[in-house]
Formats: sequence, C-alpha cells, structure tokens
Amino acid sequence: MSKRYSFKNDYSEGAHHQILNLLESTNYEQLEGYGLDSYSERARMLLQQELEDDSVDIHFVSGGTQANLIVLGSTLRPHHSIVAAQTAHINVHEAGAIELTGHKINSIFSTDGKITPEQILQVLDFHPNDEHMVKPKIVFISNSTELGTIYTKHELQELSKLCNEHGLYLYLDGARLGTALTANGQDLKMSDLTSILDAFYIGGTKNGALLGEAIVITNPELKEDFRYFLKQRGALLAKGRLLGIQFLGLFEDGLYYKLARHANELAQKLAQGIKDLGYSMFSDSPTNQIFPIFPDQVIDQLWNDYDFYVWTRLDNNKSAVRLVTSWATPEKCINEFLQSLKKITRTSR
Amino acid sequence: MSKRYSFKNDYSEGAHHQILNLLESTNYEQLEGYGLDSYSERARMLLQQELEDDSVDIHFVSGGTQANLIVLGSTLRPHHSIVAAQTAHINVHEAGAIELTGHKINSIFSTDGKITPEQILQVLDFHPNDEHMVKPKIVFISNSTELGTIYTKHELQELSKLCNEHGLYLYLDGARLGTALTANGQDLKMSDLTSILDAFYIGGTKNGALLGEAIVITNPELKEDFRYFLKQRGALLAKGRLLGIQFLGLFEDGLYYKLARHANELAQKLAQGIKDLGYSMFSDSPTNQIFPIFPDQVIDQLWNDYDFYVWTRLDNNKSAVRLVTSWATPEKCINEFLQSLKKITRTSR
Amino acid sequence: MSKRYSFKNDYSEGAHHQILNLLESTNYEQLEGYGLDSYSERARMLLQQELEDDSVDIHFVSGGTQANLIVLGSTLRPHHSIVAAQTAHINVHEAGAIELTGHKINSIFSTDGKITPEQILQVLDFHPNDEHMVKPKIVFISNSTELGTIYTKHELQELSKLCNEHGLYLYLDGARLGTALTANGQDLKMSDLTSILDAFYIGGTKNGALLGEAIVITNPELKEDFRYFLKQRGALLAKGRLLGIQFLGLFEDGLYYKLARHANELAQKLAQGIKDLGYSMFSDSPTNQIFPIFPDQVIDQLWNDYDFYVWTRLDNNKSAVRLVTSWATPEKCINEFLQSLKKITRTSR
Amino acid sequence: MSKRYSFKNDYSEGAHHQILNLLESTNYEQLEGYGLDSYSERARMLLQQELEDDSVDIHFVSGGTQANLIVLGSTLRPHHSIVAAQTAHINVHEAGAIELTGHKINSIFSTDGKITPEQILQVLDFHPNDEHMVKPKIVFISNSTELGTIYTKHELQELSKLCNEHGLYLYLDGARLGTALTANGQDLKMSDLTSILDAFYIGGTKNGALLGEAIVITNPELKEDFRYFLKQRGALLAKGRLLGIQFLGLFEDGLYYKLARHANELAQKLAQGIKDLGYSMFSDSPTNQIFPIFPDQVIDQLWNDYDFYVWTRLDNNKSAVRLVTSWATPEKCINEFLQSLKKITRTSR
Repeated sequence: MSKRYSFKNDYSEGAHHQILNLLESTNYEQLEGYGLDSYSERARMLLQQELEDDSVDIHFVSGGTQANLIVLGSTLRPHHSIVAAQTAHINVHEAGAIELTGHKINSIFSTDGKITPEQILQVLDFHPNDEHMVKPKIVFISNSTELGTIYTKHELQELSKLCNEHGLYLYLDGARLGTALTANGQDLKMSDLTSILDAFYIGGTKNGALLGEAIVITNPELKEDFRYFLKQRGALLAKGRLLGIQFLGLFEDGLYYKLARHANELAQKLAQGIKDLGYSMFSDSPTNQIFPIFPDQVIDQLWNDYDFYVWTRLDNNKSAVRLVTSWATPEKCINEFLQSLKKITRTSR
Repeated sequence: MSKRYSFKNDYSEGAHHQILNLLESTNYEQLEGYGLDSYSERARMLLQQELEDDSVDIHFVSGGTQANLIVLGSTLRPHHSIVAAQTAHINVHEAGAIELTGHKINSIFSTDGKITPEQILQVLDFHPNDEHMVKPKIVFISNSTELGTIYTKHELQELSKLCNEHGLYLYLDGARLGTALTANGQDLKMSDLTSILDAFYIGGTKNGALLGEAIVITNPELKEDFRYFLKQRGALLAKGRLLGIQFLGLFEDGLYYKLARHANELAQKLAQGIKDLGYSMFSDSPTNQIFPIFPDQVIDQLWNDYDFYVWTRLDNNKSAVRLVTSWATPEKCINEFLQSLKKITRTSR
Repeated sequence: MSKRYSFKNDYSEGAHHQILNLLESTNYEQLEGYGLDSYSERARMLLQQELEDDSVDIHFVSGGTQANLIVLGSTLRPHHSIVAAQTAHINVHEAGAIELTGHKINSIFSTDGKITPEQILQVLDFHPNDEHMVKPKIVFISNSTELGTIYTKHELQELSKLCNEHGLYLYLDGARLGTALTANGQDLKMSDLTSILDAFYIGGTKNGALLGEAIVITNPELKEDFRYFLKQRGALLAKGRLLGIQFLGLFEDGLYYKLARHANELAQKLAQGIKDLGYSMFSDSPTNQIFPIFPDQVIDQLWNDYDFYVWTRLDNNKSAVRLVTSWATPEKCINEFLQSLKKITRTSR
Repeated sequence: MSKRYSFKNDYSEGAHHQILNLLESTNYEQLEGYGLDSYSERARMLLQQELEDDSVDIHFVSGGTQANLIVLGSTLRPHHSIVAAQTAHINVHEAGAIELTGHKINSIFSTDGKITPEQILQVLDFHPNDEHMVKPKIVFISNSTELGTIYTKHELQELSKLCNEHGLYLYLDGARLGTALTANGQDLKMSDLTSILDAFYIGGTKNGALLGEAIVITNPELKEDFRYFLKQRGALLAKGRLLGIQFLGLFEDGLYYKLARHANELAQKLAQGIKDLGYSMFSDSPTNQIFPIFPDQVIDQLWNDYDFYVWTRLDNNKSAVRLVTSWATPEKCINEFLQSLKKITRTSR
C-alpha cells in the first residue's frame, strides 16, 4: 500500500538540505552555549541587516507557542490583557498557554483571521480604564493568518497608528511570515516591520528549519532583561547554536523567501485548479494554506490518497478543508491531486 | 592564534555523527507532528524496553529546565513545595523557573549536591500539616549531581522508601544520568529507576544529542493529560521527530552509555593526573565533572590555553574550578592539559 | 442640598443592626484566630443544618471575587478551563482575576446571564480532548445572575446532569443567592443545592453583612487542603470571627431570607410601577436588580434625585439602566422614585 | 472551669470600642463602594498628614499576607526575586503566597528577624546579573520583626542607602509597625518612613482594628494602576468603608499609638518580671512579643492557666515560648501570670 501524500501542514518534513549541511559542517566546533555562540551572533547581525535596523534585539526560541507565551507573558503587567482575533492561535490552539501566564485574551469576532482598528476601538470602549476590568495593552495579530489571509502594508500601518494613539503594543505572530511577505501582489517588506511593530517573530519551523523562531523586539521598553525570560520559561537551549545556525542558513542567500515563495506558488496553483473545477473557497488566501469547500463524498474519496484536515463543518453536506503546501511540496503532487479531484468531481455529480 | 580548548561544559559541540546521520536519512519522510510520528513512537518503545517497563509514559522535550518546570509546575497543586538541595539546578540556575510556576523550594544545606532521608525528615518536621506553611510534596534530586557526585542504588532506595512513607513524590533530574549510570563502581541500572522514582528525565543534550530530554513518568497519578502540560508550556515541538529520532539514535545500540562512559573515563583520567600532581578535589566525583582546587596563579596560567569555569572561591589564594569532559572530548586534550599543568605546577612552586 | 438616593447597588450601607450587635456583644471574648473560633464553628454547623448535609465543608472569605478565584484557581489543574456566560462576573468585572490564576474562560453568548446545557455541549464539542486546546472542566453559573434572572430548580438539575455526564464540575456564584431563593414563584431551596452543585458560595456582603461569603464544598475531590488555598491567597483573616459571627447572625433566625425577600419585594414593586408607566425591561428579573429601559432625557432627569448605573446603551435615544434595592432600602424611596418618574414621564412625552 | 488567658497573639479580641462605635454611627449612610467612599478618602488624607507627605498613595486591604502578596506579586517583573530574612513571615508563614505569584525569595540567615546591608550585598554578589539566576529586586523587612526586635532609624537609613545604590526597592511589612514606633527608646517616627521606604503597610488587624492594613506607596514607579492589582487579587472590598472607617478611628486622635504603647508596656513589664525570676530571653525584644526561655516543666504548668505558643525547641529540656500582649490585655493578667510563674519557679527548682 502506498502512503497517502499529506497536505496537513507545513512541518511534515525535516529541514532544507542546506540547513542540514550547515549543521553538519559546524558540528565539531566548540562553541559558547545558550545562544552566545558566534553563529548565533552572525545570524542576529544578518537579521538586523535584513530588517535594516541594527537596534533591534533578536532572540531565537524553539517554537511559536513558546515565542508567544514568552513575549506576552513576560512583558505585560498582571492586569494587562491581549486583544486578538477569535481565530488566533493563542486563543484556540495553544492550550491556554497565554492564560497560564496570567493574562486574559479579549477576543474579536473574525472569520478571516484578521482584525481591524475599529474592532480594537470597540474593545477599548468596553474597557474604560476601570479597575474592575482588565486593561487591554497589546494587540496580537498573525501574518499570514491562521486562515491564510494577509494584511497589506497599509492595513498594518493603520493598526500601528491606532495602537500608538492608545498606548497599546502591536505584536505579530510570524509563524508563516515568509508566506505573507512573498504572496503575490504583497507590498510589505521585512524591513517595513520594525517601524510598524513593537515585537514579532520570524518563523523558521514552518519554513524549512528543523525548529526555530526569531523573536524581534523593536520597542526598547520590551528589551530589558529579556534573556532572563527565555531562561525561566525553559527556552534558552544549551546548544543555542542549533537555532542560530539554522537562521544563518535561512537568511544567508535569501533561502527563507525562496522556500516561502515555493510554498505559495504551489498552493495558489492548487487553489486555481480547484476553483476551475467549480469549487469555492472558505477564505481568500494568497498564501500556502488554502481552504476549499467540498461535499462530504468528495472529501471521503480524496482521503483515499491524501491526508488533510477538515477545518470547519459548514452544513450537513459540506465542509471547508485545509490544504497546506510547504517548501518541500513537489509540484507533481499538486498535479496529481488536481487530477484525482477532477475524476472524483466527475463521478460525484 | 590557536583557540583555547574548552572544558566549560558538555554541550560545546553539536551531536554525535550517528545522530546527525539519522536525522539526515529520515529528513524527507512526511511524518506526523508534535511527537506522534513513527520514530518518536519507536523511541518511546525502545526506552520502555531499556527500562523493562512498558507501563511508563515517555515524553520528549527540548531541555532540562523545560523538563523540570513542566513536571514540577504541572503535577503539583498550588500549596505544594519542592524539597531540594541548596545546590540544585532548580534552586540556583533556572532563573526562578520553578517559582514562576508558583511553588516554593524548601532547600537543604548540601556541599556535595546530595541530600539524605534525615534531611528530608527535618523539612517535614518543620512543616507539620499547617496551612500557614507550604506542604512539601515532591523531593527533587539530580544524578549525577551538580557537583559530579552520584547516589548509590541503596541511597536511592532509602530516599524512595522515605518518600513513600510520607506521601512524597521522588523526582530525578537526569541531565547527566548517563554519567551516573556508567560511573566506575556504580551498581545502579537504568531499569532500577522505575521502581525507585515517580518521575525523572533522561538527558540527551549533555550526552551527544543536539537537544532533547526524555521525561519518564512511572507514577500513574502524574500521567494524566501530560501532553496538555507540554503544549501549554511551549514544549510540544511541531517537528517532534527531531527529538524522537535522536533518542532512537542514542539507545538503538547502547550509544548513550558508550558516550557517557567515554566522558567519565577521560574526566577520571584527568582527575587522577591532577591529584598525582598534588592537588586536591572540592568534591568526590566519579563522573564527567571534576572540581580540582588550584591556586590563583595556576588558574591564570591554565586560562592561556584552556577555558573553564571557576566554581567557587575558597580563600584569598585559591578556588575550586570545574572541568567538564564530554562524549566529544579527545583523549589528546586530556594529555595536553596534564602536561601544561605539570609545567605550570613546577614553575609556580 | 439633599443627597441623592442611590439605587446603584446592594452594598451602599453597612450591616444589619442584629449583625453589628452580635459583633459588639462578643467583642472582648478571646477567640482562636483564622476561622477556628467557636462562633465560626457554630456558623458552619448552622449552615450545614440549613443545607441538611453535615458532610459539606464551609469556609468563610471576604468577598465574591476572592471566593471565585480561590475555588477556581486552586481546584483546577493548569490545562483546565472554565465555561461561563459572556456576562459572568468572572468574565467581565473581576479584572482578569481568574486568568491571573492561569485559566482560560470559555465564554458562552448570553443576554440574560444564564446558560443552557446545549450551549455547554457546544463548548465541549469544540474541545474534543485535544491537547492543543484547553480542557473545559468546570461550569460557572451565578444565581441570581448579573442580569437579575434566576434558574429554576429543574434548569439547575439539567445543568448538573450534563456536568455529571461529562466529568465537569458545576460551581455557583451566590453573591445574590438570597434573592434567587426568595424570588416570587421560585421552587429552589437552599438544601437542594448540595445535590446539584460541586461547590458554591452564599453571599453575605450583598445581603446585610459588612463583608463575608460562605464557600460551600460538596464534592469531596475539592475539599482536600482547602485552608491552604485560603491562606496562600490572603483570604484567611486573623480575626476570622468577624466572618463567622456575621453568618451566625444571618442564619440564626432566618434573617438572611428575610433581608433578601425585602430587597426582592421592593424591587418588584419598583418594576411594576415602572412598567405601569409604560416602560419595558431589558431582562426579566424577579429579584432585586431590575433593568428598565428609559429614554435619555428621562435618565437625565432621574439623575437629579437618584443615583444608578446605565447598564447598556441600546440606541441613540435610550439605554437600559440598573436599579438595585437592598435589605436596607426603605419603601418610601420606592414610592418617591415612582412619583418622580411619573412626573418626568408626563413632561417628557 | 475558668478559661485560660491567652498570650497567643494580638488578634484574640475584636476591635477597640471607639472603632466599633464609628462603624455603628456611620452604618446607615449610603456610601460609594470599593474604597471610594468619603470616610476612606478622609482616612487616606489623615494618613498622608501623619506621614507628612501628600504625594503617597494609600490603599486599604484586609490582611498582611494579602498586602504582601499584592505589593510583591504585582510590582515585580517575572525574573525578580525578593531578599528577606529566613524568619520572615513571607518566607515561612504565608503558605507560599509569594512564590504563588511567581517569585523566589532569597533568604538570609537571621536569628533575630533582622537583616543587614552586608548580608544583602552577599546576595547581590551571588547574583551577578546572570540570566541563569533570578535578579534580586526588592528587599523585604518587617518592623517590629517576627522576633519582636526593631530597627533603629539609622539601620533603616543604611538599608535604604544600599538599596538605592543597587537599584533595589525597600519594602516594610508593618503588621506590628505600631509597636515598633512606640517602643521604648525608639527614635523612628511614622513620617521618617516615606523617605526610607518604597512601600510599606501600616497594620491595623494586630493593633485594635477588626481587620485592615494600609498599604503606603512612596515610589512613583509602584503607584500606577495599583487598584487593578487590588481588584484582581480579590482585595477590593465592596464595602471598603469598613477599612477606611477603622483607619479613621485609629488615627483621628492618636489611638493607634496609644494602643501599641499599651501592648508594649505590658509586654515589657512581663519581660522584666520574667527576667527578675531568673529566666533569659531568646530575642531582645522591646515590643509586644517576648520570647522567654523556660524549662519544659515550667511550660507544662503555665499551660494550666495560660495559652501561648512554643516558639522553638532549644534542647531536650527547654524551649523558647512566645508571649504576646495586645491593646486589649489587662494589666491584671500580667500580674497574675508573674505570680503564677513565681510559684511554679519556686516549686520546680
């Protein structure tokens, strides 16, 4: 029996071979521990160049939940809350990690994963500096979002403006930042982010690394003593080199963007093919996660050859499914999926 | 200028080449995420065989502080405290990670890193089920300890007996468990641990892995819902394969013991050579961390060629230093160090 | 200038005179501290009799937020969440006290302050034992609710049944329990609660005491070591007598019910009078909080003589206001308010 | 059977009658909730006058543990630790309340309850801005201490100087501040404290109030949003008047000092009488807690007529006991105790 090809996520494979090679070629060098090694230093400098700002602080951690809980849990004071979309990863899929650090999430209704300045204002209006309620202090967004959608540069600037006006921090979860920056028609560049955000992270795990996210802190208020927060949450790896070397590999020659672009292109080809067969999409995603709506019998048949998640049940007969491509997805699999779907579609009508 | 050889710790190098090879050979397989992949499954089974107990639960995490804070922080109720040596890693070098989870550490005076049943009893006597005080609930030990010393099987059994009698859990930090089990004259086997301990972890980071510790839970009370605790502390790696594959590599053919034995042998050769030159030791360590006492001028000269930590200042003229060997330490470096020390010793007298 | 009469809340006055007398007559007796005094013991026994169950544990604390955060924060494990109405006090007006203890609140849409078994089931369906999400473990309800509404005995039994079937605890915030039990047509008795709930509290502060709530624990799983939790949250008063004596006063001769009934009767008289003048109500409350809907100009004029909160703005011209009566409200004030409203109504039309 | 007179503590009785009278005379006034009433406002102003500094913030809470956990738990960042004497209330008798807020206590060896600048320096030396360790940030002292001892003004100024030099906050637990300020020969005045301390609390519970402590914040960095911290720890009483009115009663005509002086004088008379009978003292206390050392047989006989705690066992034959006087202790009881002791002493020799 042949194995089903998986479109479940973008972390099904190991790491891009250039990254593995780099780990191997540096393997026997004796290096400082805890992220103070020369490779991590170089990776931090490389990212500062990429961001065109050498004043930002950069810290490498193992994963996205870890990045989120450290930034949010360590920089907020006890009465501060986080404003986020109802669909936000921190609000649904981090097992209460943020609340475990002591903070409430004020969730905003959203179907596409995005939030607007107007929605944030409504949250602020509901919390008028009253000590019987939490005090919203940081806005959490993701880009690309959990629904594959992206923010334009202008939208981010508007969010940033609102946050500045109301003393809120703006934080971006960049687990899939690469796909947001390389989406077709996107006008946002990596170096735009430092003036827009107070902190964010650049995701490596879902874009070709074995593991690793780079937390970037632009707001000086959030920089102080940050390594303590890493240590006390168990995020300071003894062999921190493992993270630094991978980010060196990802950014030395634009590999990061190349991998994300690959994932986007294959997802969009897949989306176009699905639409051409007459199906509609649950969200308008230009990135590597697409959400086609299929009848149940189509889903059942697709499952014979492909693995993927059903995202949400829409009615008694159909659901939106999630198909995710990655840096490692071969174009061949896209073609084969579309052919299968074509056959299934013909049969099931 | 040649680089100084480092005896600072046992995580200065990357990973043993067999482990890197395994990561590479499995790299392009599509696998389940979050530790549910087939390699992690096999690694868990392998460890259960090693422990001669297929009822234990095994969870892989990134590092020792993470392992400690998850086990202690998630299994205790809010009023429970931890009994540990004053020198314990959790009491000194985890930046308050345990207290951040809400629990007090009742520390016991210790110079060699070990604690005794009598000392634990004193802590219990001081806390007579009085709701104005914390309630000691878990005893934390390390093996080998932060001072390189080890517990005999009998000593562990006595600790276990006491804990059972008083409703305490016994937890062992095994960051350097390999060196404890392979120390000269040690009568303790890996499979002895399941009947002695309620939970422990087997350290990979300091014994040849890139990163990774295997938490082993033997007490059924501590098993329930443990994966939630991993997730909410940011410890559930998307590419959990990275941890499982490494532990597979470490235990498939006894590599784990071989690497630890190598580290021990070189450290003990180093210790003997140092003693032969007339120096004494701060602790009686049969493992890969040794703590010779040197006059300041000797330390200063050794620093020309070697890197290591001064552990503790003993008086105005001398300190105990820490020399750590690892799976990767070449025997040549031991010989050279001893020759250097011999020269320095001759000159400085 | 005469002072405006306040319908803002039911804690505007001190304590019922019988309670003050009791504090005074016992004032110079030397008593044990921390709630172990003879009066607190007697109050606990009296409450057990009232509940017709001498196996329940009873602990007195200072206030409702304190009661909620101790019960929820101390009995749940770190990954557990709380299911509650969006309008619940813990979700809005406790400044994130519950999240500060580390737990997420899964809020349910509600306009009348009540939740149904079906709504709870939806929350459970959304959280299918997946370690990437929180695990709902306790259902929080209030009675009477924040909107003055009440649960029937049958409704509570249905909630209880569902909770039992799904391994959930059921907890009731009884800040205004007195008014729920004495509402017109209510079929629920105090002694019914022990078989329905796992824990709850009987509110004293809002029903004639200076301060004080009695936490009642019926589920043995939640009883162990509870006094530790009181102590470590700062809730174990040195002069615990202050709480015990007041509950003795409240329950020795049914004063508790008498006071609540008084508050209800006046509120209902007020409500009827308001309805007779042609106004409608925002919620269907049979208790001491009523929520009439007034045009802005009526509100403005009422504010000349009365103090009260605007609860929620309904459109550009009108709002729901909250009028609260208490054990101390004189009937005269109800009559005067209705006369004022009559005049204002006539003028403003 | 006559009841034994209790020297167990200074919270065995209710409140001074002037305080009860004030509660009664204001009982039916309708007042704002949550400490915003006119009496609490006046009490705050009165305390500012007493402190000769109208810039300090004052917040009333229910008890000492609550005061400590709110100040320490809410103003520190997650990696900060607290430096305190091993004997400190927060280190022993608050059931881990401080650690529950996430912070480690770096304890200093002390037998008399006091700590010195030199000892604090040693703690700082051990924590050299290393992110693997906690970062000491606040020094906790009590006055009078848990051993009845007091700091001189000069000693406090030296502690304050050291803290300023090293960026540490200095916080004082004033559960028994009254007795410290009125001790014989004491040169410290209430108004001296604002320039010495960053925050402290003035204890009411142990000096004649039913309950209540006044937190005083002098350092502007610690003032912001403090009422949120009160609310989210369950410390904002609905009827906050209860606390404000009592502090009004305590400070309107110097009652606070009068009550403390009474307690001190009786304790010192008791101490002198005990010493005159040939017994020595465990600590050199000029305040209302004294710690005479008695042989076991003396203790046993005293227990026939008196209640008190054995503080610490000194050897097989004798212990230090704690005798506490209060604002309510009648002089007659001192005389009777001394006569009893005289008889027992004669018999037991």
